[in-house]
Amino acid sequence: MNERRHVSLNLNVRGMGQSATLAINERCRTLKREGRTIYNLGLGQSPFPVPDPVVDALREAAAEKDYLPVKGLRELRGAVADYHTEHSRIEAHPDGVIIGPGSKELMFLVQLAFYGEIIVTSPCWVSYQPQARIIGRKVSRIHTTWETQWKVTADQLRRSFAVVQDDYRPRLLVLNYPANPTGLTYSVEELRAIADVCREYQTIVLSDEIYGRLHHGGQHESIAQFYPENTIISSGLSKWCGAGGWRLGTFCFPPNLYWLLDALATVASETYTSVCAPIQYAAIRAFRGGVQIERYLAHARRILRALGTQCAEVLRSARVRVCQPDGAFYLWLDFSPFAEVLGQRGTNNGAHFCNQLLEDTGVAILPGGAFARSRQELTARLAYVDFDGAQALAASEHVPLHEELPANFATQYCERVVRGVTRLAEWLHA
Amino acid sequence: MNERRHVSLNLNVRGMGQSATLAINERCRTLKREGRTIYNLGLGQSPFPVPDPVVDALREAAAEKDYLPVKGLRELRGAVADYHTEHSRIEAHPDGVIIGPGSKELMFLVQLAFYGEIIVTSPCWVSYQPQARIIGRKVSRIHTTWETQWKVTADQLRRSFAVVQDDYRPRLLVLNYPANPTGLTYSVEELRAIADVCREYQTIVLSDEIYGRLHHGGQHESIAQFYPENTIISSGLSKWCGAGGWRLGTFCFPPNLYWLLDALATVASETYTSVCAPIQYAAIRAFRGGVQIERYLAHARRILRALGTQCAEVLRSARVRVCQPDGAFYLWLDFSPFAEVLGQRGTNNGAHFCNQLLEDTGVAILPGGAFARSRQELTARLAYVDFDGAQALAASEHVPLHEELPANFATQYCERVVRGVTRLAEWLHA
Repeated sequence: MNERRHVSLNLNVRGMGQSATLAINERCRTLKREGRTIYNLGLGQSPFPVPDPVVDALREAAAEKDYLPVKGLRELRGAVADYHTEHSRIEAHPDGVIIGPGSKELMFLVQLAFYGEIIVTSPCWVSYQPQARIIGRKVSRIHTTWETQWKVTADQLRRSFAVVQDDYRPRLLVLNYPANPTGLTYSVEELRAIADVCREYQTIVLSDEIYGRLHHGGQHESIAQFYPENTIISSGLSKWCGAGGWRLGTFCFPPNLYWLLDALATVASETYTSVCAPIQYAAIRAFRGGVQIERYLAHARRILRALGTQCAEVLRSARVRVCQPDGAFYLWLDFSPFAEVLGQRGTNNGAHFCNQLLEDTGVAILPGGAFARSRQELTARLAYVDFDGAQALAASEHVPLHEELPANFATQYCERVVRGVTRLAEWLHA
Repeated sequence: MNERRHVSLNLNVRGMGQSATLAINERCRTLKREGRTIYNLGLGQSPFPVPDPVVDALREAAAEKDYLPVKGLRELRGAVADYHTEHSRIEAHPDGVIIGPGSKELMFLVQLAFYGEIIVTSPCWVSYQPQARIIGRKVSRIHTTWETQWKVTADQLRRSFAVVQDDYRPRLLVLNYPANPTGLTYSVEELRAIADVCREYQTIVLSDEIYGRLHHGGQHESIAQFYPENTIISSGLSKWCGAGGWRLGTFCFPPNLYWLLDALATVASETYTSVCAPIQYAAIRAFRGGVQIERYLAHARRILRALGTQCAEVLRSARVRVCQPDGAFYLWLDFSPFAEVLGQRGTNNGAHFCNQLLEDTGVAILPGGAFARSRQELTARLAYVDFDGAQALAASEHVPLHEELPANFATQYCERVVRGVTRLAEWLHA
């Protein structure tokens, strides 16, 4: 009783578990300790090291100790603006950039500051809903399907806006492409059509392009080109630069939305204050890019393309519904063709499926429920990152960039991933 | 009109200005650009560099890129626990430690997670109230006075608890000592008496000891000794280690409060994720301490003591109400003896006083209103940090540590601070 009185928690937070991603890691660690072989296809962390020039820049900036401006170091904001001007084909301005300790934290600030409906497409990244819950707000979801490659269509978007009969409703639509958890991206035509609908309803777009430079063909296109006045681009060092643990995310606002940028900065000034100074100096080097970083990216993309293609083929042959990935390092798996067989084995929801898979085979993937899908749905995200990225990069460097990697590259250098995927396929048909 | 519809902000955030500290810096920069000589006694940043072994440790850890555990790197949590076991004389455990991107962010997580009354003493640090406002909650204040050296007394605390007639009310009391903004600290007797009242009302104490190691006599005492079961100790690298811009704060919980620690970790996992990896590795070195860091601290304290004493003497001679500081690098100035004279000059609130002072003399200090005091009150915080800390440390090293610094040390190595204080004294009597 005494114990109970002492636990005095905000009900929004009370009972919230740790995130699904963390839970699966925890379980993997336990099984490893028990001597099991684990294929960790759960966590979405870049397998590649931070490029050398960026690490060197951090070493050089190690003695930087001052509190930096809330929105970020001027020079870094300039480098980020230039980066988007080049890669997103917009006219970005340093004044529109804010640096945060991860784009996840910046998204949380948006949830705190923006008054209006926040809309995500499902499946989507794990944290939108829990963030909303923490502060007692809601996030609307638009469910996508296998038929449209898990992407929202312009028609679907227009219908969902029109049905509300509230034309001036303040709205913010989050689009993430290449997408976590699907690895798929929008075509230029699709982006153009979505932009038109958003313009019609004056909806703000938060375009999460953190995997943009990991488009396997190096051909990422931003919706900001077609809707510059109301698009915020989200990026950061975590994925393309391999520096997830460094915690540096960026948002780039158009002048039209500086009121929201300023509100974010106000909240930032009362919470995290500013991003780690040495990391900001190093990030200047990362966003400025250059030949060495472009080569690093070209090799990383080629490895991911080869591996992603091979994994998708193995699974497709095993009758899993899966698309050829466009970018990032994820596959979104739909096991509904196996619903009956699995039901006979006693498996009729995603979490049970993933737990059973892990116990039987040592393969860890995350259930669809973690990505804002129904818990019943037999979907899951597979992250093909459980390999030594430094070793794979070194091997790739022996093959000229205009050539394809040899057919056995993935099997040789990403062995655990390929084995895990094979075990998954075999387990389905066991 | 169109413009107005687009600004769609949470009313909690809308209209919030930037923090007072940032505003004064902005004004200082503008005046400097106009060619004015500025004595920036506004911003509370350590003037000293990060100790060399800690900078070296960051260089060595520059390639660390993994997402670290939400609560922090195990080794660092151990080092922080050992640090508190040694310096706060408690039995701290690694399991009780959480690492955040600044203790300010961790305090914000407490505001999000804790259900109950949060109580601060005024004057207090700038961010408690705005943090509460952002999420629409309230913070209670207990006002202190010159007579008790701006410290809350046990009697005052008991009266404020008793008057509510709600014995089981969940409460969390924030105590900060040596204090920002006063530079004053509690005696062992005072802490013991406060601990007794808190125990009686089962109140959680958040003991912010971030300036503990900058007690000028090296004799910081923690309330945790007297109330271990319900005290959370807050610390970090920003002040004693000179690394404000690195953004690393720590909270250390007793087992009794692990439920609150776990709730903080849940919120952290959905917001900032984890603290910058290379910084965490470097922080291990900082918290482990050792001879080189102890010497650095001994010199820093001796410099701050000499300078703080000299500043207080100049101001006391000028009839400003000010106490001899115990630690940190602040003086809390009460200009009420000048109320009549200032009123004749048209100055009858703290902000006007500080603006006029800045325009007339180039001396920047922050008005009491920024520290949860009434806006009418003629009080202000002076931070005596506008000097080259590296140069002062180097000079101090020529004087054996068992000796006092020569009488002219502050005038020679902290010239801008001493001049600024002198100008302030002269201006009052002009």
